[in-house]
This record gives sequence, C-alpha cells and structure tokens, in this order.
Amino acid sequence: MSRFAPRPEPPYYAVIFTSQRTEGDQGYAAMAQHMAELAANQPGYLGIESTRDESGLGITVSYWRSTADIVAWRKQAEHAAGRAQGRAHWYAHYELRIAKVERAYGWDRADGTQPGDGGS
Amino acid sequence: MSRFAPRPEPPYYAVIFTSQRTEGDQGYAAMAQHMAELAANQPGYLGIESTRDESGLGITVSYWRSTADIVAWRKQAEHAAGRAQGRAHWYAHYELRIAKVERAYGWDRADGTQPGDGGS
Repeated sequence: MSRFAPRPEPPYYAVIFTSQRTEGDQGYAAMAQHMAELAANQPGYLGIESTRDESGLGITVSYWRSTADIVAWRKQAEHAAGRAQGRAHWYAHYELRIAKVERAYGWDRADGTQPGDGGS
Repeated sequence: MSRFAPRPEPPYYAVIFTSQRTEGDQGYAAMAQHMAELAANQPGYLGIESTRDESGLGITVSYWRSTADIVAWRKQAEHAAGRAQGRAHWYAHYELRIAKVERAYGWDRADGTQPGDGGS
C-alpha cells in the first residue's frame, strides 16, 4: 500500500502533526495503528502520510475534505481518549497545524515531471 | 536547536513535501542541508520541520509568511538546480502541497496542555 496520500482536487484540508516521542513504545505503535484505522473510516477522510526518524521526531499529515470533518474526527471518542494517552505517555512535545491545501503537485520517477511541478 | 518550527500567529503558509528517497546518499544529505540553509535566508521564511524514516519516506514542512515568498523561493536559482538534481537522482516519488495555515496549537510535556489543544 502506498504511503502517499491521494491527490484530490484542491481545496481540501491538512492536519499537520509534528511530534517528538518519549522513550520506549509504551503501547504507542498499536494505538497509532488503531487511530489511523479509525481516521480512515471517518467522513471526509482523504488520506494520510506519516513518518518518524530514529530520534523519535515524527510528522503525520492527514487530509480531510472540510474543517467540519476535522472537528468531527477531533470529537470522535476513541480519538479523544487516544490524544489524552498521547499527552500522558507518548509525546514529549507536539505542534498541530490545520491548513487549507490550495495547490498540489506530484512527481514519480516512472512518469517524469508533472505539469506545474514545483519541487520544494 | 529545536526541530520544531516556531508558532507564529496564523495565517501563514506551509509547503508540505512528502518524498521517497532512492537508494544511497548520492550527495543528498549535503544538498539537503545546503537547501535548508538557503531557505532559512529567504524572505518570509518562518521555519521548517523535517524527518525521514529508515525506509526513506520523508516529510518536510517549510513555513512561509506568504505565497509570494514561496514563489520567490521556488525561483531561487540554487533551489531550482537542487530540485532538478532531486528528480534526476534522489527521489523515487514526491507529493508537494501548498497550504494556508489557519489554526495552530502546541503542547509540551513540561508546560502541560495549551489552550485550544486539539491533538491530532
């Protein structure tokens, strides 16, 4: 399964979650997997991209059709409980940003450069 | 130095760059460091967050005051050359999204929950 989110037509919304993990798993991996599965079943979910390096610095970006969909996900009971566990055990620090995606491009080695490709 | 970007008052802009590295370094690490230094000296640069896992899946989010600042960075000559090298050598696939940050929160274990904290 691709670790890249689909590329719907903008506008849509991104939740950018940058976090530093505490030491040890403490049940994190299982809960993170469960939260990703819950999110994927929420209305308005468009996709997710997530990675974390060996130092525990991770960035997860989830994509949503609307801010109302993000609010509904925030209010989802298991998700709220998971966030509380995150603050209690799993995270040393995090930053959360909600952003409206206005433009999106992609490139694949097999396809070559896409129109409007801007790189970063 | 913190790997978290500062938390300016929204609105501001995020460039979300998700990429899969090819095998081997091929000069990537040195160029990535140089590009980060160049970006930090561009007008309107607000900060950057970047991480990559052992499989080579990376997410870099750079933050900018305005879309005009992002366009200027895109046009910066060394950056344009670096992107071309990225497509030639370093990346198997990438997705690039430009998004307007509308809301931002942060949390730190030492400080406890911030007002409006929304988790992920």
